[in-house]
Amino acid sequence: MTNILNSYIKGRWFQAETGFKDILSAIDSTVVAKISSAGIHFGEVIDYAKKVGGANLRKMTFHQRADVLKKIALHLDANKEKLYTLAFQTGATKRDSWPDIDGGIITLFAYSSRARKELPDKTFVVEGPSERLSKNQTFSGQHILTSREGVAVHINAFNFPCWGLLEKLAPAFLAGIPVITKPATATAYVAEALMKLIVESGALPDGALQFICGDTGDLLDRLDGQDIVSFTGSAHTAELLQQNPSIARNAIRFIAERDSLNAAILGSDANKDSPEFANFIKEVTREMTAKAGQKCTAIRRIIVPQAYLDDVTSALKQSLSKYIPGNPASKESSMGLLVSKKQRNDVIQAIRQLQSEAEIVYGSLENIDDKSAALSPVLLSCSEPLKATVIHHVEAFGPVATLMPYKTTEEAIELVKKGEGSLVASIYTYDDRFANALTFGIAPYHGRLYFIDRDSKDEATGHGSPLPALVHGGPGRAGGGEEMAGIRGIFHYMQRTALQASPKRLTKLLGEWSYGGDQTVTEEHPFRRDFDGLEIGDTIRTKERTITLDDIEHFANFTGDTFYAHMDEEAAAANPFFPGRVAHGYLLLSFAAGLFVDPLPGPLLANYGIDNLRFLKPVSPGDAIHVRLTVKEKRAARNPEYGEVRWDAEIFNQNEETVARYNLLTMSSRQPAL
Amino acid sequence: MTNILNSYIKGRWFQAETGFKDILSAIDSTVVAKISSAGIHFGEVIDYAKKVGGANLRKMTFHQRADVLKKIALHLDANKEKLYTLAFQTGATKRDSWPDIDGGIITLFAYSSRARKELPDKTFVVEGPSERLSKNQTFSGQHILTSREGVAVHINAFNFPCWGLLEKLAPAFLAGIPVITKPATATAYVAEALMKLIVESGALPDGALQFICGDTGDLLDRLDGQDIVSFTGSAHTAELLQQNPSIARNAIRFIAERDSLNAAILGSDANKDSPEFANFIKEVTREMTAKAGQKCTAIRRIIVPQAYLDDVTSALKQSLSKYIPGNPASKESSMGLLVSKKQRNDVIQAIRQLQSEAEIVYGSLENIDDKSAALSPVLLSCSEPLKATVIHHVEAFGPVATLMPYKTTEEAIELVKKGEGSLVASIYTYDDRFANALTFGIAPYHGRLYFIDRDSKDEATGHGSPLPALVHGGPGRAGGGEEMAGIRGIFHYMQRTALQASPKRLTKLLGEWSYGGDQTVTEEHPFRRDFDGLEIGDTIRTKERTITLDDIEHFANFTGDTFYAHMDEEAAAANPFFPGRVAHGYLLLSFAAGLFVDPLPGPLLANYGIDNLRFLKPVSPGDAIHVRLTVKEKRAARNPEYGEVRWDAEIFNQNEETVARYNLLTMSSRQPAL
Repeated sequence: MTNILNSYIKGRWFQAETGFKDILSAIDSTVVAKISSAGIHFGEVIDYAKKVGGANLRKMTFHQRADVLKKIALHLDANKEKLYTLAFQTGATKRDSWPDIDGGIITLFAYSSRARKELPDKTFVVEGPSERLSKNQTFSGQHILTSREGVAVHINAFNFPCWGLLEKLAPAFLAGIPVITKPATATAYVAEALMKLIVESGALPDGALQFICGDTGDLLDRLDGQDIVSFTGSAHTAELLQQNPSIARNAIRFIAERDSLNAAILGSDANKDSPEFANFIKEVTREMTAKAGQKCTAIRRIIVPQAYLDDVTSALKQSLSKYIPGNPASKESSMGLLVSKKQRNDVIQAIRQLQSEAEIVYGSLENIDDKSAALSPVLLSCSEPLKATVIHHVEAFGPVATLMPYKTTEEAIELVKKGEGSLVASIYTYDDRFANALTFGIAPYHGRLYFIDRDSKDEATGHGSPLPALVHGGPGRAGGGEEMAGIRGIFHYMQRTALQASPKRLTKLLGEWSYGGDQTVTEEHPFRRDFDGLEIGDTIRTKERTITLDDIEHFANFTGDTFYAHMDEEAAAANPFFPGRVAHGYLLLSFAAGLFVDPLPGPLLANYGIDNLRFLKPVSPGDAIHVRLTVKEKRAARNPEYGEVRWDAEIFNQNEETVARYNLLTMSSRQPAL
Repeated sequence: MTNILNSYIKGRWFQAETGFKDILSAIDSTVVAKISSAGIHFGEVIDYAKKVGGANLRKMTFHQRADVLKKIALHLDANKEKLYTLAFQTGATKRDSWPDIDGGIITLFAYSSRARKELPDKTFVVEGPSERLSKNQTFSGQHILTSREGVAVHINAFNFPCWGLLEKLAPAFLAGIPVITKPATATAYVAEALMKLIVESGALPDGALQFICGDTGDLLDRLDGQDIVSFTGSAHTAELLQQNPSIARNAIRFIAERDSLNAAILGSDANKDSPEFANFIKEVTREMTAKAGQKCTAIRRIIVPQAYLDDVTSALKQSLSKYIPGNPASKESSMGLLVSKKQRNDVIQAIRQLQSEAEIVYGSLENIDDKSAALSPVLLSCSEPLKATVIHHVEAFGPVATLMPYKTTEEAIELVKKGEGSLVASIYTYDDRFANALTFGIAPYHGRLYFIDRDSKDEATGHGSPLPALVHGGPGRAGGGEEMAGIRGIFHYMQRTALQASPKRLTKLLGEWSYGGDQTVTEEHPFRRDFDGLEIGDTIRTKERTITLDDIEHFANFTGDTFYAHMDEEAAAANPFFPGRVAHGYLLLSFAAGLFVDPLPGPLLANYGIDNLRFLKPVSPGDAIHVRLTVKEKRAARNPEYGEVRWDAEIFNQNEETVARYNLLTMSSRQPAL
């Protein structure tokens, strides 16, 4: 029975009846699956995404969306073995598939956990500090981020059918935007199996994710200014898609991650006996052979000091000789296959182009296996790389890389830049000047720079591994896109809007207190209100406490903080910031707490931190301080029994001048007060 | 003598010899100037920008660049009168030109001052927290931003020849990227005069700014992946430019700010006797008449409750009747002219299109003055705006707006959204529910939302005024671009790169201490080293101090902080976070200061704040604490006598467990220690 791949649209599985293409096995070129999107009305798909998916997602908070991702990740993790088995047909060994399958699941977990920690339990984000726009603070500015009311179209590459779908899904889903995802044809059967598991998890809100097996038809023509396209694949295809007239007409956000001739650079200090040299050989070998070199982050250009070229060449030859492509399903195979014989043809074509400027020093294009899509590693070497162009521009998307010698640090930098923008470069050195020169010489051309040396080698995460916490993307040839980078990746799917209003209005809109907003001095001490009972703007104003010279001396002797500004009138007066002896900042904080504390057990459980404390005016003996403390923000904690409360605290002197401002962080009970 | 406009390229003024176009006066259609870029080789212009301008700029720190902007701003401010005089020919009255000329100068000052405050005295930015990537912290991540090695091409609109050039220049210049700027033809003579003043200031580094009067020829075709295009103007032109094949091929960043049918929405609560109604009429009138309505932020769609339509219409008629276009140079004129008779023809064309769905209720298209480019305000009204399309899509770029009634809040939101993305909308209400519904209903379609009510009206900055602190730009029809928004606007011109390395390497690369990096325990107390003598990584490790129950009780009684967790063993143990009685957080901070303080006068002048303090583990009576304090970052202050030092502080207990972490901020002298 032939495996006909289904799309998942409008809440159900859809099977085409015509227009099929065959997808062939990397192992034996038999038909693994048939694919077609004939009969899908993309207008309806978009409509369903917006009306059902968008509406469902925008009702959920970031935390609720994070919980869904976690549920999906747990279900995938429990059922991932079938994905590994299917992936053998794509040429990937179990080890090759780990970053795809487990890597994808880890990305979901990471995004879920990050959203829980770094985003509020709300549907929008208050971004950055409020901007003072007026003298009397009756008009202020504040940026927020809200979910765009569009759809995210994700077009994935064949090499990571699982990770590619999931790393794009996680930030979009958290942003509250429904996704229409299209797997690459060559490995669509793995993506389809993944999609089945996602649907099976039962966690997905209706319309949040649709899955298109086959061509995307007129999908792009139908997008509007709230929509976003995120593409991973070749520069050629990216260019075609980006030139779709609707992209410019409707100013559609277009995120691309495309060709990249990533470099690995061996430092001029890293001779063959150095730990950096050993790690360089290990990393280059791994990047050439893992996934048979079919990774957009793989090392394509091996940039080495002229003096070490021979050492590197022979070390790599020896190291590569251990890798012989074989049946991916077999544990004996040291490396897997290309995804298809067609892909191998493309790679061979590309190698022939590279040969115009470089010679093969390891591997060969002879004796190509006719049955499977196997290709042994091919190492090329170019003797005059500064004069070359093809080796810096043609990406052979297989186990292929080119050696390029350099004479000076400046030459090394120039060589790297000839790639015209890459996803990543790795640098192997223990020399500060070389590391520094390379970093600032090539950073503008890269999304990620990766350093291995003797200090980091044991825990380094791999040249080729994009991480949820860091930018994945690169300028120029690499497409100019940015993905992941933690929370930033979520914000790509949201709209930034500046709000201008009175602080009173801002406080109400944001659900957090804006400086100058209403203060409600309650009869009951707000520390006696539990988390749910506290209202934004609830305020304590304390009585006054005069600070005496005795207080200062006593505090100094008790704590040991006998800094002259507190102890010696003459020396203190000579300090440019103080009029004479002044109170300790810590004394002010401590006395402030003494003024606002509510001593008996109650819903306020602990003060767990302080943010943005600034001492703005010195306090002299005889000054009297009082404190205003206002509920600024409430955040539910992971544990449903507590909530985090952020208080805006301000200490004044007897002239109502602010002497200190800070945010006080407390943990409050969500059960009724004892 | 005809005024032939010059370009400023490759460090000198250039005058074309052929290919001139005439620029006509708005007042009397005489030729004000002639413009041509014939003979300019754009390849050389780009080359000069990159080789000379980029190299010069990247050598400067953010603070040095900020100082240049300030010098330019001061020179412009002292010589601005000639700009005002020239601008009369563009149809702008003195009041019309204020946001252009003074607004542009203010933007330079604002950016200069913000860069001084918010950016370091370095050539790159360390962005966001470091990311922990490994268990033992031998491998970490950190994002940085560096100057792209390209050129910024700025293409400006005719309506703000000064502000448009300057608001784009400031962030690009601060980012360290050279600018090639092209004024719109219709008002290029004002921009040329501005450029002359900029050059005359003598502050500009060579190659940092080039100025193209006339067509941009093949400029765009020659751009590469490090370059950025920022355009302000019509959607049609933006679309054409964005479709230049080099944009997609080289993944060039393209920032556009284009058509926008901005809405003003009167709340359902704001009847004719409310302060919000009065401000609504005032603001709509101002936006229709200022600059003769030629502002991309002007109000085009006036969305009012059906019940108030008549009140609004008659109030606006009355208010608009005070505005009659006249000679802009005359103080008697209540409003200015359109920029040209051609522009007026375009506006009249657009009004005719609007008339297919709306009727003129004020003003007329009769009796058009043949000599000047005058056009009196035209107010239209559409009775069924939900069924309309033209009134939501056609931007009549003149003193023209359309009234649109709504029945329900949902209808109001739907009407606003029919604009398909705008720069700004303003909302006039004192009703919380209406304000909230509008905000979250329309935010995804806007770059800025502006609220006026009785609390903010006296200090509100104007619906139509983009501010350096806030986003200027909008999604969809408005072009999808973002400009300004404070420091964010600078970052658009920089490349974000994730660095992955050992904390030791990161510390050296960033010039600031990364957690896990080298700590240098110096013999001399680092508080005795002045700002310049302190090295990143300099560390104090203090001796231990045991905290007794007496200490806690004493501190409680002295400060008044008798919270039960410190005073009552049984109650404290019942608290989920504490094992029993614990030390006050403020006691820990105070004792920590007592441990690391160096009492005698020296280069350390003051502790002016604390950031990111978290209490991580409770400290019980009998525990002994000690402190590690490491120089994390140094920032030169505006005053050359001091510098700000940020210390990474960590308090440990006797088991080397971290009980608190924070950043301590001190001010240190830049003179040798006394």
